[in-house]
Amino acid sequence: MASDRRLAPSEARLAGLGLKAAAEAVATGAVTSEALVAACLGRIAEADDGIGAFAALDPDQAMETARRADRWRQTGNGIGPLHGVPIGVKDIIDTAGMATENGSPIFKGRRASTDAAAVAALRSAGAIVIGKTVTTELALLTPSAVNNPAAPGHSPGGSSAGSAAAVAAHMVPAALGTQTAGSVLRPASYCGIHGFKPTFGLISRRGVLMQSHTLDTVGVLARSIDDVALLTDCLSAYDPDDPASYQRSQPRLAEISSATPPAEPILAFIKMPAWDDADPRMHDAMAELADVLGQSVEPVDAPILADIIEWQRLVQLAENAAYYGPLLDGHANLLSVGLRDRLTAGAAVPVRDYLAAVVARDEAYRTIARLFSRYSAILTPASPGPAPRLEEGITGSPIFNGLWTYLGMPAISLPLLEVDGLPLGVQLVGDRYDDGRLLRTARWLETRVNAIESGQA
Amino acid sequence: MASDRRLAPSEARLAGLGLKAAAEAVATGAVTSEALVAACLGRIAEADDGIGAFAALDPDQAMETARRADRWRQTGNGIGPLHGVPIGVKDIIDTAGMATENGSPIFKGRRASTDAAAVAALRSAGAIVIGKTVTTELALLTPSAVNNPAAPGHSPGGSSAGSAAAVAAHMVPAALGTQTAGSVLRPASYCGIHGFKPTFGLISRRGVLMQSHTLDTVGVLARSIDDVALLTDCLSAYDPDDPASYQRSQPRLAEISSATPPAEPILAFIKMPAWDDADPRMHDAMAELADVLGQSVEPVDAPILADIIEWQRLVQLAENAAYYGPLLDGHANLLSVGLRDRLTAGAAVPVRDYLAAVVARDEAYRTIARLFSRYSAILTPASPGPAPRLEEGITGSPIFNGLWTYLGMPAISLPLLEVDGLPLGVQLVGDRYDDGRLLRTARWLETRVNAIESGQA
Repeated sequence: MASDRRLAPSEARLAGLGLKAAAEAVATGAVTSEALVAACLGRIAEADDGIGAFAALDPDQAMETARRADRWRQTGNGIGPLHGVPIGVKDIIDTAGMATENGSPIFKGRRASTDAAAVAALRSAGAIVIGKTVTTELALLTPSAVNNPAAPGHSPGGSSAGSAAAVAAHMVPAALGTQTAGSVLRPASYCGIHGFKPTFGLISRRGVLMQSHTLDTVGVLARSIDDVALLTDCLSAYDPDDPASYQRSQPRLAEISSATPPAEPILAFIKMPAWDDADPRMHDAMAELADVLGQSVEPVDAPILADIIEWQRLVQLAENAAYYGPLLDGHANLLSVGLRDRLTAGAAVPVRDYLAAVVARDEAYRTIARLFSRYSAILTPASPGPAPRLEEGITGSPIFNGLWTYLGMPAISLPLLEVDGLPLGVQLVGDRYDDGRLLRTARWLETRVNAIESGQA
Repeated sequence: MASDRRLAPSEARLAGLGLKAAAEAVATGAVTSEALVAACLGRIAEADDGIGAFAALDPDQAMETARRADRWRQTGNGIGPLHGVPIGVKDIIDTAGMATENGSPIFKGRRASTDAAAVAALRSAGAIVIGKTVTTELALLTPSAVNNPAAPGHSPGGSSAGSAAAVAAHMVPAALGTQTAGSVLRPASYCGIHGFKPTFGLISRRGVLMQSHTLDTVGVLARSIDDVALLTDCLSAYDPDDPASYQRSQPRLAEISSATPPAEPILAFIKMPAWDDADPRMHDAMAELADVLGQSVEPVDAPILADIIEWQRLVQLAENAAYYGPLLDGHANLLSVGLRDRLTAGAAVPVRDYLAAVVARDEAYRTIARLFSRYSAILTPASPGPAPRLEEGITGSPIFNGLWTYLGMPAISLPLLEVDGLPLGVQLVGDRYDDGRLLRTARWLETRVNAIESGQA
């Protein structure tokens, strides 16, 4: 990983290609996979000492895989939609041939014998797993050491810290993350990129460290809606080995998200229960956004959300304690104090409260889902404010994300706001199983905001 | 319900018709629905004072529905597979137009506005809900007052006490029950009839009192495998409103269960963990059965079963407490002492233990399912012995049933044994989603045993 060389402008351009653009460039022969992977490795070598996005990297293996991808393409054989394109994978997702350490010394040197289902899907699409990205401790709240490339000196958020940082720093065009509360959307918000958590069960969790079977969701981080849609399309498949996986036709998000909405979208602007405690700069930024969107936005009140936040909290706490309890029993000295306290608290959740929180979900979902007869999506910030400073020793709050995870609804963070030079994501939430409509609405919103900002609206 | 008249022999014959025979008699016009329902009502009037199987009955409504069924048939319109045939429905299953009191004074006079999905399916098949059958308190362990028609002075078991007694006493050809531990199989065993709990999720639980979403299963009670298969076929349908329901082709159990097994079945004879504590008369009866079956039976050991019994116990206890907790909070004085203690104990189950028990299920199932590569079914008694005497104040133990409920595997009780003049069921357990093979194997076993008993083998 060591290199003193600065990237040449042509290499920087290559490393900065989006996922779709990179895949097209390799597919057409405009760029070799070898050059693309070399540029990304060069960018990592140049920048990762100061960012720390990667937990594991095998440059020789990646370059060898890239050259094999180029030879394969030259034979004229068919290629997958991500042929020869490097991807980062969060270090709680198993990769055969590369360690998966779950952000914890307990798993130091752990090598899974089998790829996670999502990683196998990446390889089937032709993608190259360039390295494992840093996660917070066991994908929970104790921070990693990752620096935020979009706001140096600030946290990249968590738990998909390295995935968000690597994408934001142009080390990879896209990366896999996971979300149990806000672990995809919040890092995307803080790092100024796109983070998408699809409908619960769209992407298989087989081979992913389980911390909550009711909540855990695989998601993606990238730098455009096109890229988010392309990557999710490659990952979504029914998997009978994940009980959350569901049978349905492939959603073809890339196609649906590119279409023009059949009617002008209206967004339900929900000020969440934690609104008043959030950063006032976020209040101003959201008010300004709502203002320029005018009649496309309507304020909506949903009193049930406070209960939902509590239900999500209880479910995650109790299931964390169940899944990580054996680690507390056997390796307490290798866990952070914060995590130990959390697991102890989780084990003390009364089983009646836990079950009530699980059982409440379907009805709560139906209550919220009624909004989608009028609204194309729910509009709310992706985090209570911009990234906290690193010295605060926190990854920020997932309070604006966890409830949508609990409800199993797809959510995306769009890098549309900025406060004091720090990125802040706008969150759009869609209906379950309607990920395509959500991405289509997200594109409409981005186009609208960009047009307004460039004075064309 | 009051009637001093004894049933005429022709009426007794009608009341004693099996479900399939009754449906065929009505369909061909050999018997009117009016005569059939009148015979069953007559039998109820004659016998139910001493048995107490019914919690609610509306003879006028049933007769009116029967006459309408006869008029409908006479028009030449198509009819459903249970046209004009009376069925009993356990009193925790909602029926529009007839009270559903859940075996508890808390629900005295409660009338559901909508039929349960299983009841709607009965009506679609043309069946007539003749009445609601007595359940133990909230379908748990506190006994009802039902007497056992096959063993007067003994418990009919529980919780589907009235359903089993009504079928055994020829008051109805078949009835619906439910099982969370052993509430279909055990009453069938004690009452000398057939009780079938299909694969978890085959029959929708919408509109059924929930006591455990992980375990609750709707089942059927009847007097032959033909009848069990016919009724289950009418009830099995995918229901998106029950999360346990699964999408699959209709199993056509009546057809599959009538076929000759493609190979001579071999049964895995499992002596359960509670074997040594069970009634020695059961030991003798099962040994004799295994002896006459010779090489068709092989003893199999499954050490994991002790763990499974404990997991089932924990899951049921905790989920009971979650679902019935509000009753304990608001109506403790209307609950039996036993149930109060049980709900208090359930609320104290550590959430880690509960979740570990839920999570263990898939792997435990896979361990047991391996048996089905060699064996057609698992053979074990349906209860630890025959029915306890009423004055013992218990409904007997579900210890031989609950583990199969937890594993989601189909199980049937066959009235093949007798000790000291009391019925004792043989339990066959099949693989998930392979209810047809289980019923086919059950028929093979019945035929084999009957042939041996009549000296033809």
